[in-house]
Amino acid sequence: MTTAFPTASTDRELERGQVLAPRFDANGLICAVTTHAGTGEVLMVAWMNAEALRLTLDTGFAHYFSRSRQALWKKGETSGQLQQVVEVRVDCDQDAVLLKVRPQGDGGACHVGFRSCFYRVVEGGALVERD
Amino acid sequence: MTTAFPTASTDRELERGQVLAPRFDANGLICAVTTHAGTGEVLMVAWMNAEALRLTLDTGFAHYFSRSRQALWKKGETSGQLQQVVEVRVDCDQDAVLLKVRPQGDGGACHVGFRSCFYRVVEGGALVERD
Repeated sequence: MTTAFPTASTDRELERGQVLAPRFDANGLICAVTTHAGTGEVLMVAWMNAEALRLTLDTGFAHYFSRSRQALWKKGETSGQLQQVVEVRVDCDQDAVLLKVRPQGDGGACHVGFRSCFYRVVEGGALVERD
Repeated sequence: MTTAFPTASTDRELERGQVLAPRFDANGLICAVTTHAGTGEVLMVAWMNAEALRLTLDTGFAHYFSRSRQALWKKGETSGQLQQVVEVRVDCDQDAVLLKVRPQGDGGACHVGFRSCFYRVVEGGALVERD
Protein backbone atom coordinates (compact mmCIF):
# COMPACT_ATOMS: atom_id res chain seq x y z
CA MET A 1 0.00 0.00 0.00
CA THR A 2 1.33 3.42 -0.94
CA THR A 3 0.34 6.19 1.39
CA ALA A 4 1.91 9.02 -0.59
CA PHE A 5 -0.25 11.63 -2.28
CA PRO A 6 0.84 13.99 -5.07
CA THR A 7 1.27 17.73 -4.70
CA ALA A 8 -0.62 20.23 -6.84
CA SER A 9 1.78 22.55 -8.65
CA THR A 10 -0.64 25.37 -9.46
CA ASP A 11 -3.63 26.97 -7.79
CA ARG A 12 -5.77 25.81 -10.67
CA GLU A 13 -4.70 22.18 -10.15
CA LEU A 14 -5.31 22.57 -6.45
CA GLU A 15 -8.75 24.16 -6.77
CA ARG A 16 -10.20 22.75 -9.98
CA GLY A 17 -8.02 19.71 -10.68
CA GLN A 18 -9.13 16.10 -10.67
CA VAL A 19 -6.10 14.93 -8.68
CA LEU A 20 -6.46 14.43 -4.95
CA ALA A 21 -3.47 16.40 -3.66
CA PRO A 22 -4.11 16.95 0.04
CA ARG A 23 -2.08 19.63 1.76
CA PHE A 24 -0.90 18.21 5.05
CA ASP A 25 0.36 20.73 7.60
CA ALA A 26 3.85 21.01 9.13
CA ASN A 27 2.99 18.05 11.36
CA GLY A 28 1.85 15.96 8.41
CA LEU A 29 -1.82 16.29 9.34
CA ILE A 30 -5.00 17.41 7.64
CA CYS A 31 -8.27 18.39 9.31
CA ALA A 32 -11.19 15.99 8.84
CA VAL A 33 -14.82 16.92 9.49
CA THR A 34 -17.16 13.98 9.86
CA THR A 35 -20.90 14.22 9.29
CA HIS A 36 -23.72 11.70 9.55
CA ALA A 37 -24.56 10.53 6.03
CA GLY A 38 -28.24 10.31 6.89
CA THR A 39 -28.89 13.47 8.86
CA GLY A 40 -25.98 15.69 7.83
CA GLU A 41 -25.21 16.40 11.49
CA VAL A 42 -21.59 17.29 12.19
CA LEU A 43 -20.38 14.46 14.42
CA MET A 44 -16.74 15.29 15.05
CA VAL A 45 -13.58 17.02 13.93
CA ALA A 46 -10.35 15.03 13.93
CA TRP A 47 -7.01 14.76 12.17
CA MET A 48 -5.57 12.47 9.54
CA ASN A 49 -2.04 11.81 8.43
CA ALA A 50 -1.45 10.42 4.93
CA GLU A 51 -1.76 6.85 6.15
CA ALA A 52 -5.09 7.52 7.88
CA LEU A 53 -6.49 9.18 4.76
CA ARG A 54 -5.24 6.36 2.55
CA LEU A 55 -6.72 3.70 4.86
CA THR A 56 -10.02 5.58 4.98
CA LEU A 57 -10.21 5.67 1.18
CA ASP A 58 -9.05 2.07 0.71
CA THR A 59 -11.04 0.34 3.46
CA GLY A 60 -14.20 2.44 3.53
CA PHE A 61 -13.91 2.92 7.28
CA ALA A 62 -12.77 6.15 8.92
CA HIS A 63 -9.23 6.25 10.23
CA TYR A 64 -7.73 9.21 12.04
CA PHE A 65 -4.47 10.22 13.68
CA SER A 66 -4.54 10.98 17.38
CA ARG A 67 -2.44 14.03 18.15
CA SER A 68 -2.40 13.29 21.87
CA ARG A 69 -1.40 9.65 21.41
CA GLN A 70 0.60 10.29 18.22
CA ALA A 71 -0.89 7.15 16.75
CA LEU A 72 -3.05 5.97 13.90
CA TRP A 73 -6.57 5.29 15.09
CA LYS A 74 -9.32 3.29 13.45
CA LYS A 75 -12.47 4.92 14.75
CA GLY A 76 -14.57 2.46 16.71
CA GLU A 77 -11.97 -0.25 16.99
CA THR A 78 -12.47 -0.38 20.75
CA SER A 79 -15.83 1.41 21.16
CA GLY A 80 -17.61 -0.32 18.31
CA GLN A 81 -18.47 3.09 16.88
CA LEU A 82 -16.98 2.23 13.49
CA GLN A 83 -17.72 4.75 10.78
CA GLN A 84 -18.68 3.35 7.39
CA VAL A 85 -17.70 5.96 4.84
CA VAL A 86 -20.34 6.91 2.29
CA GLU A 87 -18.56 9.86 0.71
CA VAL A 88 -15.27 11.75 0.98
CA ARG A 89 -14.98 15.35 -0.14
CA VAL A 90 -12.07 17.78 -0.16
CA ASP A 91 -12.22 21.55 0.09
CA CYS A 92 -11.08 24.19 -2.37
CA ASP A 93 -7.47 24.41 -1.21
CA GLN A 94 -7.33 20.74 -0.22
CA ASP A 95 -6.36 21.32 3.38
CA ALA A 96 -9.53 19.80 4.84
CA VAL A 97 -11.57 16.69 4.10
CA LEU A 98 -15.23 16.03 4.73
CA LEU A 99 -16.44 12.50 5.49
CA LYS A 100 -20.08 11.46 5.31
CA VAL A 101 -20.40 8.31 7.39
CA ARG A 102 -22.84 5.82 8.82
CA PRO A 103 -21.91 5.32 12.47
CA GLN A 104 -21.98 1.70 13.59
CA GLY A 105 -22.35 0.21 17.06
CA ASP A 106 -24.55 2.37 19.26
CA GLY A 107 -24.67 5.04 16.56
CA GLY A 108 -22.65 7.54 18.54
CA ALA A 109 -19.38 9.25 17.72
CA CYS A 110 -18.34 10.94 20.95
CA HIS A 111 -16.37 9.34 23.77
CA VAL A 112 -18.32 11.39 26.33
CA GLY A 113 -21.49 9.55 25.33
CA PHE A 114 -23.25 11.97 23.05
CA ARG A 115 -24.25 11.28 19.44
CA SER A 116 -22.09 14.17 18.24
CA CYS A 117 -19.05 15.76 19.88
CA PHE A 118 -20.74 19.15 19.45
CA TYR A 119 -23.27 18.73 22.26
CA ARG A 120 -22.71 22.16 23.81
CA VAL A 121 -23.99 25.52 22.61
CA VAL A 122 -22.45 28.83 23.60
CA GLU A 123 -25.23 30.93 25.14
CA GLY A 124 -24.54 34.24 26.81
CA GLY A 125 -20.90 33.27 27.04
CA ALA A 126 -21.60 29.99 28.86
CA LEU A 127 -21.92 26.43 27.59
CA VAL A 128 -25.26 24.67 27.61
CA GLU A 129 -25.59 20.97 26.80
CA ARG A 130 -28.10 20.37 24.05
CA ASP A 131 -28.02 17.01 22.34
CA MET B 1 -12.68 44.12 24.72
CA THR B 2 -10.94 41.21 26.36
CA THR B 3 -10.00 38.40 24.04
CA ALA B 4 -8.65 36.03 26.68
CA PHE B 5 -10.48 32.79 27.46
CA PRO B 6 -10.05 30.67 30.61
CA THR B 7 -8.42 27.25 30.70
CA ALA B 8 -10.21 24.17 31.99
CA SER B 9 -8.26 22.54 34.80
CA THR B 10 -9.85 19.08 34.67
CA ASP B 11 -11.21 16.79 31.99
CA ARG B 12 -14.62 17.10 33.61
CA GLU B 13 -14.55 20.89 33.35
CA LEU B 14 -13.37 20.60 29.77
CA GLU B 15 -15.98 18.05 28.69
CA ARG B 16 -19.02 18.75 30.87
CA GLY B 17 -18.34 22.22 32.22
CA GLN B 18 -20.34 25.35 31.50
CA VAL B 19 -17.25 27.48 30.93
CA LEU B 20 -16.10 28.12 27.39
CA ALA B 21 -12.41 27.20 27.65
CA PRO B 22 -11.22 26.75 24.05
CA ARG B 23 -7.97 24.91 23.57
CA PHE B 24 -5.94 26.81 21.02
CA ASP B 25 -3.03 24.95 19.44
CA ALA B 26 0.67 25.82 19.56
CA ASN B 27 0.03 28.54 16.98
CA GLY B 28 -2.83 29.99 19.02
CA LEU B 29 -5.47 28.67 16.63
CA ILE B 30 -8.60 26.56 16.87
CA CYS B 31 -10.38 24.77 14.04
CA ALA B 32 -13.78 26.16 13.03
CA VAL B 33 -16.33 24.27 10.96
CA THR B 34 -19.04 26.42 9.44
CA THR B 35 -22.41 25.05 8.35
CA HIS B 36 -25.45 26.66 6.75
CA ALA B 37 -28.02 27.28 9.47
CA GLY B 38 -30.86 26.45 7.12
CA THR B 39 -29.63 23.38 5.26
CA GLY B 40 -26.94 22.05 7.59
CA GLU B 41 -24.50 21.85 4.67
CA VAL B 42 -20.84 22.11 5.65
CA LEU B 43 -19.69 25.31 3.98
CA MET B 44 -16.06 25.64 5.02
CA VAL B 45 -13.33 24.84 7.51
CA ALA B 46 -11.18 27.68 8.75
CA TRP B 47 -9.16 28.80 11.74
CA MET B 48 -9.71 31.23 14.58
CA ASN B 49 -7.37 32.81 17.05
CA ALA B 50 -8.76 34.06 20.36
CA GLU B 51 -9.54 37.48 18.88
CA ALA B 52 -11.46 35.97 15.96
CA LEU B 53 -13.51 33.77 18.28
CA ARG B 54 -14.23 36.69 20.61
CA LEU B 55 -15.27 38.93 17.72
CA THR B 56 -17.48 36.18 16.32
CA LEU B 57 -19.24 35.80 19.67
CA ASP B 58 -19.49 39.53 20.34
CA THR B 59 -20.54 40.79 16.90
CA GLY B 60 -22.60 37.86 15.63
CA PHE B 61 -20.61 37.75 12.40
CA ALA B 62 -17.98 35.11 11.63
CA HIS B 63 -14.35 36.15 11.97
CA TYR B 64 -11.43 33.87 11.19
CA PHE B 65 -7.66 33.98 11.18
CA SER B 66 -5.90 33.47 7.85
CA ARG B 67 -2.87 31.22 8.27
CA SER B 68 -1.48 32.20 4.87
CA ARG B 69 -1.88 35.93 5.46
CA GLN B 70 -1.36 35.70 9.23
CA ALA B 71 -4.18 38.15 9.72
CA LEU B 72 -7.60 38.44 11.29
CA TRP B 73 -10.28 38.15 8.67
CA LYS B 74 -13.94 39.16 8.84
CA LYS B 75 -15.58 36.75 6.42
CA GLY B 76 -17.27 38.61 3.58
CA GLU B 77 -15.73 41.99 4.27
CA THR B 78 -14.58 42.22 0.65
CA SER B 79 -16.76 39.56 -1.04
CA GLY B 80 -20.01 40.49 0.66
CA GLN B 81 -20.36 36.89 1.82
CA LEU B 82 -20.76 37.91 5.44
CA GLN B 83 -21.82 35.10 7.74
CA GLN B 84 -24.50 35.94 10.28
CA VAL B 85 -23.99 33.57 13.19
CA VAL B 86 -27.07 31.72 14.42
CA GLU B 87 -25.36 29.30 16.80
CA VAL B 88 -21.88 28.50 18.09
CA ARG B 89 -21.04 25.06 19.46
CA VAL B 90 -17.86 23.61 20.89
CA ASP B 91 -16.77 19.97 20.85
CA CYS B 92 -16.07 17.63 23.74
CA ASP B 93 -12.42 18.55 24.25
CA GLN B 94 -12.96 22.16 23.18
CA ASP B 95 -10.42 22.14 20.38
CA ALA B 96 -12.95 22.77 17.62
CA VAL B 97 -15.92 25.08 17.19
CA LEU B 98 -18.97 24.68 15.01
CA LEU B 99 -20.73 27.73 13.58
CA LYS B 100 -24.20 27.66 12.11
CA VAL B 101 -24.51 30.71 9.88
CA ARG B 102 -26.74 32.47 7.39
CA PRO B 103 -24.51 33.46 4.46
CA GLN B 104 -25.17 36.97 3.18
CA GLY B 105 -24.42 38.53 -0.22
CA ASP B 106 -24.73 35.96 -2.99
CA GLY B 107 -25.20 33.19 -0.43
CA GLY B 108 -21.88 31.54 -1.17
CA ALA B 109 -18.94 30.80 1.08
CA CYS B 110 -16.16 29.73 -1.27
CA HIS B 111 -13.75 32.02 -3.08
CA VAL B 112 -13.72 29.64 -6.08
CA GLY B 113 -17.39 30.43 -6.67
CA PHE B 114 -19.17 27.44 -5.20
CA ARG B 115 -21.76 27.56 -2.44
CA SER B 116 -19.59 25.35 -0.23
CA CYS B 117 -15.82 24.84 -0.30
CA PHE B 118 -16.46 21.09 -0.41
CA TYR B 119 -17.53 20.93 -4.07
CA ARG B 120 -15.39 17.93 -4.99
CA VAL B 121 -16.02 14.27 -4.20
CA VAL B 122 -13.29 11.62 -4.21
CA GLU B 123 -14.40 8.92 -6.64
CA GLY B 124 -12.11 6.09 -7.64
CA GLY B 125 -9.18 8.10 -6.35
CA ALA B 126 -9.98 11.14 -8.52
CA LEU B 127 -11.83 14.35 -7.74
CA VAL B 128 -15.20 15.05 -9.31
CA GLU B 129 -16.91 18.43 -8.98
CA ARG B 130 -20.41 18.09 -7.62
CA ASP B 131 -22.05 21.20 -6.30
